Amino acid sequence: MLYIIGLGLGDERDITLRGLEAVKKCHKIYMEAYTSLLSFGLSTDGLSKLENLYGKSITLSDREMVEEKADDMLSESRDADVAFLVVGDPFGATTHTDLLVRAKKMGIDVKIIHNASVMNAIGICGLQLYRYGETVSIPFFTETWRPDSFYEKIQRNCMMGLHTLCLLDIRVKEPSLESLCRGRKQYEPPRYMTINTAIEQLLEVEQTREESAAYSEETECVGFARLGSEDQMVVAGTMRQLQMIDFGAPLHCLVITGKTHPLEEEMLNFYRCRT
Amino acid sequence: MLYIIGLGLGDERDITLRGLEAVKKCHKIYMEAYTSLLSFGLSTDGLSKLENLYGKSITLSDREMVEEKADDMLSESRDADVAFLVVGDPFGATTHTDLLVRAKKMGIDVKIIHNASVMNAIGICGLQLYRYGETVSIPFFTETWRPDSFYEKIQRNCMMGLHTLCLLDIRVKEPSLESLCRGRKQYEPPRYMTINTAIEQLLEVEQTREESAAYSEETECVGFARLGSEDQMVVAGTMRQLQMIDFGAPLHCLVITGKTHPLEEEMLNFYRCRT
Repeated sequence: MLYIIGLGLGDERDITLRGLEAVKKCHKIYMEAYTSLLSFGLSTDGLSKLENLYGKSITLSDREMVEEKADDMLSESRDADVAFLVVGDPFGATTHTDLLVRAKKMGIDVKIIHNASVMNAIGICGLQLYRYGETVSIPFFTETWRPDSFYEKIQRNCMMGLHTLCLLDIRVKEPSLESLCRGRKQYEPPRYMTINTAIEQLLEVEQTREESAAYSEETECVGFARLGSEDQMVVAGTMRQLQMIDFGAPLHCLVITGKTHPLEEEMLNFYRCRT
Repeated sequence: MLYIIGLGLGDERDITLRGLEAVKKCHKIYMEAYTSLLSFGLSTDGLSKLENLYGKSITLSDREMVEEKADDMLSESRDADVAFLVVGDPFGATTHTDLLVRAKKMGIDVKIIHNASVMNAIGICGLQLYRYGETVSIPFFTETWRPDSFYEKIQRNCMMGLHTLCLLDIRVKEPSLESLCRGRKQYEPPRYMTINTAIEQLLEVEQTREESAAYSEETECVGFARLGSEDQMVVAGTMRQLQMIDFGAPLHCLVITGKTHPLEEEMLNFYRCRT
């Protein structure tokens, strides 16, 4: 049996009792390192905290491993209980559908253990979850690559008065261009997009498309940093206001506010920035 | 301090360690009865299971209590730790924003403990969460009241190729019309909309609006019953196919499938009904 277990958003205490029970009976434990290294502070003492809690050692599996060596993990799951730990929910912002499809094709039993993810925890700002339109991803712009397909989606959501969740780019274990040329993999340092960079890019795209005006510097937004953790930060304000704020350590995400109801406004007021 | 704690979707083992820790240190524990009575089988032995796990007694608070007597609960939170337990996530399908606003206005500290909710657990069917449009609610039709504002929303989502989550009506502790006339409150038995009724109503509305055709009997959907619990049921098929299926005990919800990617199709195939 392969257990795909959501760890939630904060720290080791956000696993559910059901999840912990499953981990404890598993023979081998893998953990997705792509976002978890950061969210759970695993670069320092987070991993040992988890290992102490579980009473077992954890194999960190980076993106390459999940993509290239998943079959080994799946084969192990055929005869023994194996856990694959995922930050948030297994089907939250980062998808693990592919792993599940491969497992099912191999005839392996899979059990999903759900948890909170960014997709529902953003509800804390008071904007109602059923009033969100399509979610968009904002990728890091480079000199030559400035994809802006998110723009039409935001525009459609705005036109319908819906809120838009913007997921911000994460670059972990990206091979450097230089190393690719040399045929030997070396990695760029990890990069996590800040709310400030996201707004900068959003406004740049808006300027190049001035005819349409989906949003502007004056558009109300909500910025979230380290959502679900003890030191989370939630601030409501215009793009211009949020751009001036230091939200601190990653992960960040951003909501572009649509048409609001009075109760939503009341909640936003508690988070309103005072500049 | 008022702790608003998400219990997740399945049973008592879906609380997080963080949530359990908070409950254990609380002086008084309230639990929202509106949906929980059902989801956690609390009409039978579910409540005592929770009470055993927490080592404390729980006060069930129905909708009237939350709406009318919340101030008492809030006053208690001023001087002591009080827990308010909610099925799913505190800001999932059912909103508790109003309670939070009242607490904040009274200057009471509030801590939210997140968990899985229907809004993200539907990810298990393989349709990507970022490809959903606005969520709709399907209310029970009566002889004289057949509101269909969900129709335009579904139509917009379909036009953009987005999936639509339909939340189905729950009627718990509704005063009967007869009792209201007599001036003495008596309640209707609880009603939970089935997927079958939802599809029947959806098709009825489609027929009266034949000009527009947002969907039809042949539209692909996914039906979910008891999502997140041990005996959950997930079936993909056309509206016509799903309408023939007995999904069993509540709660049910329904997703109207938009444009799918190949990986989404592959996942749906595992759930496809074989009729």
